[in-house]
Amino acid sequence: MQPQQLQLIFDEKRGMENNSTMPKKWGFRGNSEFKPEPQTTIRGAITLLESNLNQSDNRPVIPMAHSEPSAFPCFNTTEIAADAIADAVRSTKFNGHSPTIGILPARRAVAEYLSQDLPYKLSPDDVFLTMGCKQAAQGILQVLAGSKSNILLPKPGFPYFGYFAQLYNLEVRYFDLLPEKDWEVDLDSLVAVADENTVAMLIINPGNPCANVFTYQHLKQVAETAKKLGILVLSDEVYGHLTFGENPFVPMGVFGSITPVITLGSISKRWIVPGWRMGWLVTHDTNGILKEHGIIESIKGFLDASTEPPTFIQGALPDILSKTKEDFFSKIVNLIKEAANSCYEGIKDVPGLTCPTKPEGSMCLMAKLDLSVFDGIKDDLDFCLKLAKEESVVILPGICVGYESWLRITFAIDLSSLQDGIKRLKAFCERHSKKA
Amino acid sequence: MQPQQLQLIFDEKRGMENNSTMPKKWGFRGNSEFKPEPQTTIRGAITLLESNLNQSDNRPVIPMAHSEPSAFPCFNTTEIAADAIADAVRSTKFNGHSPTIGILPARRAVAEYLSQDLPYKLSPDDVFLTMGCKQAAQGILQVLAGSKSNILLPKPGFPYFGYFAQLYNLEVRYFDLLPEKDWEVDLDSLVAVADENTVAMLIINPGNPCANVFTYQHLKQVAETAKKLGILVLSDEVYGHLTFGENPFVPMGVFGSITPVITLGSISKRWIVPGWRMGWLVTHDTNGILKEHGIIESIKGFLDASTEPPTFIQGALPDILSKTKEDFFSKIVNLIKEAANSCYEGIKDVPGLTCPTKPEGSMCLMAKLDLSVFDGIKDDLDFCLKLAKEESVVILPGICVGYESWLRITFAIDLSSLQDGIKRLKAFCERHSKKA
Ligand SMILES: Cc1ncc(COP(=O)(O)O)c(C=O)c1O
Ligand SMILES: Cc1ncc(COP(=O)(O)O)c(C=O)c1O
Repeated sequence: MQPQQLQLIFDEKRGMENNSTMPKKWGFRGNSEFKPEPQTTIRGAITLLESNLNQSDNRPVIPMAHSEPSAFPCFNTTEIAADAIADAVRSTKFNGHSPTIGILPARRAVAEYLSQDLPYKLSPDDVFLTMGCKQAAQGILQVLAGSKSNILLPKPGFPYFGYFAQLYNLEVRYFDLLPEKDWEVDLDSLVAVADENTVAMLIINPGNPCANVFTYQHLKQVAETAKKLGILVLSDEVYGHLTFGENPFVPMGVFGSITPVITLGSISKRWIVPGWRMGWLVTHDTNGILKEHGIIESIKGFLDASTEPPTFIQGALPDILSKTKEDFFSKIVNLIKEAANSCYEGIKDVPGLTCPTKPEGSMCLMAKLDLSVFDGIKDDLDFCLKLAKEESVVILPGICVGYESWLRITFAIDLSSLQDGIKRLKAFCERHSKKA
Repeated sequence: MQPQQLQLIFDEKRGMENNSTMPKKWGFRGNSEFKPEPQTTIRGAITLLESNLNQSDNRPVIPMAHSEPSAFPCFNTTEIAADAIADAVRSTKFNGHSPTIGILPARRAVAEYLSQDLPYKLSPDDVFLTMGCKQAAQGILQVLAGSKSNILLPKPGFPYFGYFAQLYNLEVRYFDLLPEKDWEVDLDSLVAVADENTVAMLIINPGNPCANVFTYQHLKQVAETAKKLGILVLSDEVYGHLTFGENPFVPMGVFGSITPVITLGSISKRWIVPGWRMGWLVTHDTNGILKEHGIIESIKGFLDASTEPPTFIQGALPDILSKTKEDFFSKIVNLIKEAANSCYEGIKDVPGLTCPTKPEGSMCLMAKLDLSVFDGIKDDLDFCLKLAKEESVVILPGICVGYESWLRITFAIDLSSLQDGIKRLKAFCERHSKKA
């Protein structure tokens, strides 16, 4: 105990700047030495792009970087959902703590909701409630982390899987999605990067950022490949049911008898309420392999050390899931479909951009940038920074989702904003193309 | 890549039990090798005690182990709070994501609410919104964790600080609270355990589990001692304003000019809504030391990797904090006061139990167990297990809060249940005392 020395921490305030023991004493070190580059997280990239906006441009900013249509009145959620919350909070029945895995009626409601699309019935015990899909992803990556483990993530993908993996020291290896095959998993590249320390692979279906929807046959192949590799399949299905192409949404849980499957979901996207933070992690494992390997206990361990969704939101979940009318769902899907098609068609006329496949689901698509068409545009980030500055259109550079020289374009905004955005994008590309 | 070998993970299902590579491949390891003993977490202890209840006892179970009065109708929260939530969710303004630190109006509302009791005005930038006090505690312990750091926690205390510290490999050292001095901090024992790697100390005020309220003078001494040690003071003020003795509640932030102070709070206790998960972490640091040492950035880093409270609950917070009527607060405080006094007086008649000081705040008190009075009672856990079995009264053994041979008794339940509970406790002690 040397109070004199310790005191320096305050002496520094009085001018002693060079006490090098200081930063060692305090600071966020724990597990997270790593500082992600701003452009490698979606929030970081958007902050960067927004700081580049031209304040004297009087036109409205067109937000085509985050998949967050809730700000547009046409995407308001159903009153049934808001009423369910209001009723639950007023009932006084849900003021107390919930168990860390979630209350039984809410877990049962999720089991029933998801079982509609499965060949078997889920039990409430297969369901763990989380603060949105994000916390579910965080939880399972923490569970899977081990000094030598690795996980296989798709490229392009969704950044926070890589982010959480890094946070928990879980090694990440990437496999490819194939743009020319409707963004199917390149199973050869998957097998090539796996080894005996691989514990899991991830798919995102419907696809963010690719707007694709995997077929039943392809998902079955994925499950069989995972089985050969002795790994489980994580399936992020946050965009479940937001499909509008030929392929219907098939939940990965259908193949839970081939290999253990864990699906992640939430009401954020289908109900357009990402701020409500209500999601789930669900195990589909008809052979009980996850339980046998302690994964279920580990998930509970993670949840014990986390915070559960507010009890009254859980209390509202059964009504939200079971009472929402089909016409709300179809209204939302139709709005998104119309925007997706308009975006896809619009891009055809934009020099330097191509979209390999017609969007079939989710809220954003990938467009390929032919940099040779342009003058003075270095890369996709440079493209997006200049676009933000000159046209007040915010689009995510591909580098954010692990895919350089592409753009991730969110189409799920209201139609007139979208069309305005595409028009400005076109003007930008024409102005910067070499021919011009 | 050896698919044959990997395949074993499934082969095990078919009878090959002895593949020792299996458990290494999957499992929750990350940071948390440690498995807390059930009796060292409150939830764990309660589960243990409840499993010991006698199912054929027809009397109602008296829950005096968790400080969770929301189940009793007399402790219903104010309609103003529930209406604020209902209005916010119906407004459609809060369906989208919030920034990870929380939305500005809600942070401003917390700053104003807390500034009422401070000699200076907090800024919204001093406020970080969290999922209850629990997530705030988790966050700051993660921020402070470093390979050599240690934190000083009070004994008796609140278990999850030790739990999170262990989870993040932050060394814990304990200092004593002095029962004979109204549970004041034993400053000598504090100084004795600190060293140059000590980064912070914790107080809980109003006190859980001791039902004490620190005086202005004592808090000032704490701040001055912390300053000498070069450490910050964490103050868990989740029971702020739930006081009913001589000492008024003084927030530790009053002394933020002496040493950096971080307070943790929530609406869980004062509004009796622990299930709503709305809390805050607030920095009181008029000299800007926390910022200078990167603590503020680190807190933001933690929050970026966490989930924020649902946006509409944040949206309701300004109304909840500013519109709740004084008569609701005083009704709740009076109910708790009456229960506290009744508990304190009741214990005087229970053989083998003594309560060193009259409760002045919070929702539970510590009573000393004189084991020599009883026949066949091994320790506090044994006492509580037998009490649950024989009398259907659930009381927390002191070992849960780091204080063997004591009991933590929650008095914040409705009065008739409390009186019934004390009566049964008395019967139990009389039956088991040697004289009997
Ligand atoms: C692929 C994907 N997964 C998960 C999430 C997060 O979902 P939630 O709001 O349920 O946390 C998003 C949100 O944009 C997403 O695009
Ligand atoms: C001392 C103390 N701190 C924090 C908490 C947790 O509070 P919150 O519900 O705001 O997470 C409790 C709850 O019992 C408590 O007693």
